[in-house]
Amino acid sequence: MIPPSGLCIGLDPDVSKMPNGMRTVEHIVPFLSAIVEATQHVARAYKINTAFFEQYGRAGYEALFDVREIVGDTYCIVDAKRADIGNTSAAYARALFGELRADAVTVAPYMGSDSVQPFLDMGFTYVLALTSNPGSADFQRIPAYSSEGAASPLYEHVIRTALSWHNAGRLGFVVGATHPTEVEHVRQMSPSTPLLIPGIGAQGGEARATAEANCGGPALYNVGRTILYASNAMNYADVAAKVAAEISKELQLH
Amino acid sequence: MIPPSGLCIGLDPDVSKMPNGMRTVEHIVPFLSAIVEATQHVARAYKINTAFFEQYGRAGYEALFDVREIVGDTYCIVDAKRADIGNTSAAYARALFGELRADAVTVAPYMGSDSVQPFLDMGFTYVLALTSNPGSADFQRIPAYSSEGAASPLYEHVIRTALSWHNAGRLGFVVGATHPTEVEHVRQMSPSTPLLIPGIGAQGGEARATAEANCGGPALYNVGRTILYASNAMNYADVAAKVAAEISKELQLH
Repeated sequence: MIPPSGLCIGLDPDVSKMPNGMRTVEHIVPFLSAIVEATQHVARAYKINTAFFEQYGRAGYEALFDVREIVGDTYCIVDAKRADIGNTSAAYARALFGELRADAVTVAPYMGSDSVQPFLDMGFTYVLALTSNPGSADFQRIPAYSSEGAASPLYEHVIRTALSWHNAGRLGFVVGATHPTEVEHVRQMSPSTPLLIPGIGAQGGEARATAEANCGGPALYNVGRTILYASNAMNYADVAAKVAAEISKELQLH
Repeated sequence: MIPPSGLCIGLDPDVSKMPNGMRTVEHIVPFLSAIVEATQHVARAYKINTAFFEQYGRAGYEALFDVREIVGDTYCIVDAKRADIGNTSAAYARALFGELRADAVTVAPYMGSDSVQPFLDMGFTYVLALTSNPGSADFQRIPAYSSEGAASPLYEHVIRTALSWHNAGRLGFVVGATHPTEVEHVRQMSPSTPLLIPGIGAQGGEARATAEANCGGPALYNVGRTILYASNAMNYADVAAKVAAEISKELQLH
């Protein structure tokens, strides 16, 4: 299913940041349940990051499945950044699209076509292009030669190559909000490809500047910590909904 | 803990390939338990690939923890190929080194230094360099410029860069057995760095040729399907042990 556009809320549980009196693994599901209930009128999608559940072991994995149920029919991205050799990627694709019923997943491109294809064959797949973190400069931006002999940053090479893969109609890219110039550039390279744009809020990206850089193209803008942990008082869900509504408004250019 | 050298057995459950009468998720733990018991005199390490457990949902995740217990004190690699922005990678590192008690993990390098550092800070970390799959040609081999202005394949750039990171004494590289010339080349680039060399057997790499290419350097050679599914009769564990012993012998150059 092709993703909608607008605000995406990252459901990344960190018990140390959850409200006072709710700081155990058992509180993850009620905490995120209240967040989803309070924000579903403004969230066009939710993004579940597997790391924040896996860090709590078996109980965390149980919570992962429970939170997936809570998201219900709202568009659900499972942000797992997996990829491996073909038959292993096929197993991950079954785990994420099958068992977890993801509408979309994120995939790392380093291992190339046959590591991504099993995901594209099963559902909507965001390939990492230019990520929001400082380390994105280490490899994603280094000049690389394409087979045509022209040098361009590796992430551009990833974008051009991935667009040639089978089922590219189900392909999107991750481009960090911390790089607005590059968001605009990627939008020009591929005008109609859905983007997943993380990094707004705690990581430093600004909502309006990012939406402007995207020129109204199809995109989900992910905000995590800034909404989830807006308050650690017992009215945390109401505060989260208020912050989410403000950011959602900033994202609307028209 | 620095990895040993020799045969590593990949514990990748695929119920459709398991012995007759043992083809359900509930049989994963007894199946792999028998394999580990029969092979522990020749296996220097076991590699658990998370994909093959995650594909079975909640029950698969339970089996993942149970199989980790079965491996016991033998060196245990959790092959998860994770990596994300810094705080997310820290959560994955807690999941793998903490909850799952991995001795070593595998990490994808695309997101750069701060995506790998949390793993290196917690334990032994194999960074993907040149993988065993066909798609490794798509990005890992393309000519890339380093800051010194010289062009070399991206995977070499990854190796040189990673060796400069903090705690590089706990760093290893993944280099596929399907590329013996490059195994030799990586060994020359970094004579004492432990390698994890998958791709022997079903993927086409040959044990002796790979060990020769590695020139006796520190390495674990991973074999999965060829040992695990050597027989689907009820004496599967004995057959697996026999195949494992033969491959282990081929890996010993002296």
